[in-house]
Amino acid sequence: MLHTPHGSIETPFFCVVGTAGAVKGVTPDELRELDAGVLLANTYHLFLRPGADVVHQLGGLHRFMGWDGPIVTDSGGFQVFSLGSGIEHGVGKQIGMFPGDDTPDTGRRPRGQAARLVRIDADGATFTSHIDGSRQRLTPESSIATQEALGADIILAFDEPTSPLHDAEYTREAMDRTHRWALRCLSARTREGQSLYGIVQGGAFDELRSASARFIGSLPFDGAAIGGSLGRSKADMHAVLDWSFAQLPEAWPRHLLGIGEPEDLFSCVARGVDQFDCVAPTRLGRHGQLYTPSGKLLVTRPEFAEDAAPIDAECGCYTCRTGFSRGYLRHLFAANELLGYTLASVHNLHFILDLMRKIRAAVRGDYLGELQTEFLSRYVGGAAR
Amino acid sequence: MLHTPHGSIETPFFCVVGTAGAVKGVTPDELRELDAGVLLANTYHLFLRPGADVVHQLGGLHRFMGWDGPIVTDSGGFQVFSLGSGIEHGVGKQIGMFPGDDTPDTGRRPRGQAARLVRIDADGATFTSHIDGSRQRLTPESSIATQEALGADIILAFDEPTSPLHDAEYTREAMDRTHRWALRCLSARTREGQSLYGIVQGGAFDELRSASARFIGSLPFDGAAIGGSLGRSKADMHAVLDWSFAQLPEAWPRHLLGIGEPEDLFSCVARGVDQFDCVAPTRLGRHGQLYTPSGKLLVTRPEFAEDAAPIDAECGCYTCRTGFSRGYLRHLFAANELLGYTLASVHNLHFILDLMRKIRAAVRGDYLGELQTEFLSRYVGGAAR
Repeated sequence: MLHTPHGSIETPFFCVVGTAGAVKGVTPDELRELDAGVLLANTYHLFLRPGADVVHQLGGLHRFMGWDGPIVTDSGGFQVFSLGSGIEHGVGKQIGMFPGDDTPDTGRRPRGQAARLVRIDADGATFTSHIDGSRQRLTPESSIATQEALGADIILAFDEPTSPLHDAEYTREAMDRTHRWALRCLSARTREGQSLYGIVQGGAFDELRSASARFIGSLPFDGAAIGGSLGRSKADMHAVLDWSFAQLPEAWPRHLLGIGEPEDLFSCVARGVDQFDCVAPTRLGRHGQLYTPSGKLLVTRPEFAEDAAPIDAECGCYTCRTGFSRGYLRHLFAANELLGYTLASVHNLHFILDLMRKIRAAVRGDYLGELQTEFLSRYVGGAAR
Repeated sequence: MLHTPHGSIETPFFCVVGTAGAVKGVTPDELRELDAGVLLANTYHLFLRPGADVVHQLGGLHRFMGWDGPIVTDSGGFQVFSLGSGIEHGVGKQIGMFPGDDTPDTGRRPRGQAARLVRIDADGATFTSHIDGSRQRLTPESSIATQEALGADIILAFDEPTSPLHDAEYTREAMDRTHRWALRCLSARTREGQSLYGIVQGGAFDELRSASARFIGSLPFDGAAIGGSLGRSKADMHAVLDWSFAQLPEAWPRHLLGIGEPEDLFSCVARGVDQFDCVAPTRLGRHGQLYTPSGKLLVTRPEFAEDAAPIDAECGCYTCRTGFSRGYLRHLFAANELLGYTLASVHNLHFILDLMRKIRAAVRGDYLGELQTEFLSRYVGGAAR
């Protein structure tokens, strides 16, 4: 159980992502009906718009969003740096790119990627807003101040994540900076009642991950998040988790940032992950990709035009329970009807939250391996039908 | 009370518009919580996509949309003809215009408006799909067949509406055609359990409206709808209603097509309108224009950025009751968050449905005039604050 000022949550759990202070297309009432325990909002987005002061003025993030359950905010690090290396490396979330920005290449980053959109210094990062092209700055101190103003239950230290394309040398440099920033984040805290998690970096390098987990684990954080590069394969990701968790305090909750496709949950829980967050259920939903026990179903395909069956006859979500047909959903997507995004997102969120419930029961009942075998024997995650 | 195969409804009532078989951004569950009695879907849109056969195949419109209350479909006439004269005259709903269509001007229409997108003949209308530019055709018979396949509780005769810019001569011509088509619609019916309403045309010409209402009222329809031009002012609209209703059978339910701003409801109910439909609540909502007892509030305005108040503290809708602030709603619109469209649409629908409930009580209690005076003394419909 994880205890927060907005309720206690059984682990492991999946945080539903509400990037800009709203889960796309889904109301808090619908989230409550889905039994979504915890939401995660992005500091980067709220910092830029409407601004943490505005959210604070409007009563803090819980009141702002109409959510009285626990909320996590990330530190902004991932988004700030994915504007730079993420875009330049062609990996990670691509938030937006404003060619108007002409910050000169500082030469600090490897392989010639121009730091056009983000510039790092020892003190923090200067970056270009994807909204209006303005220059903005976040430091460990301002990230913590922002997250304190937002008022989430769990906040994260400001870090510099690296991508799979960064070499060991640069990954170590970024890790060292993340460690110095971790100390500054701890010093910058002024508020009671918020948990602060440190972030373990070090890419997919055993030595670096272990060192980072040892260092972060030695500090007075309330938990840890695993950030940055998880390598290039599932095996790499599992190794990263093993290296990290071997060094972290037993009692700490562990958040694996940005991961949460159905097939990932089992192996990561088995390795000790307590918290996930992922935009996949809502993002895939908005593109008509629907989770089913036998894999993803792309409901926009012509073959579903006259299909009177629900997405999944066994599913208990609002969309399936009401009996909305695949044909109707396909029609909604073809007509760009907002209702399609809602019905698909509700279904996908139910799928993943329900899977987490089954996984929790399996952990308690000690049959996680059996559940995984059974689930994966039917589920083919890669290919949409 | 109006009795339909999907329940009985107290009149007067407001039909929530679900153009393409979905109320934009609002789930059937939310509609039920709003106590939305009756939905109206557009035959034109469903005829083009996904096709009435597909809707029929998927169980008919009620099953398709997940709505077990009464549904009205219009005949397609309004949309077909607003593609022609509506666009050419710059009035009415502008659905879309495909310059690729090069149907020659047939010379049948007055004032030189080229019938590029719609061509009328004695038998029906040929028009260009706003979706894919294909040529399509609707006749009285095919409109009825389409509406029978869709399966709404109340269906409408196929008509040719005229705009305020049509002269008396053309308006008479279109009215005569509408009357001939009304007879054909009655003959084309094959299905029990659907009410068929005739449509009164005749523009804002006393003689024509009276003649049309007399003719339509003499036929074995189950009710009447008032279509076409309602003139250029509220006074014109009221005269059109008076001329029409003087000639219609006392017992018939009367639907005023496409009207339903708050300030219109009182005077139209006083004149005998039983049914309204209007896209305004959801369309205005999607643009951040929110109904309040003191007029429309444009929540996207900068002054609301830090406004912690709900849209209307007295309002009982989900959006206001939950306490979502004007500042939050403004943020959702600024960030193009889907949730903003939903919360605003739910609020506006609640406002108009609640006003209709108050109007029904006032009609029963014989104080409609007092309610109107009280409402209009506060409500300024024209200008958004």
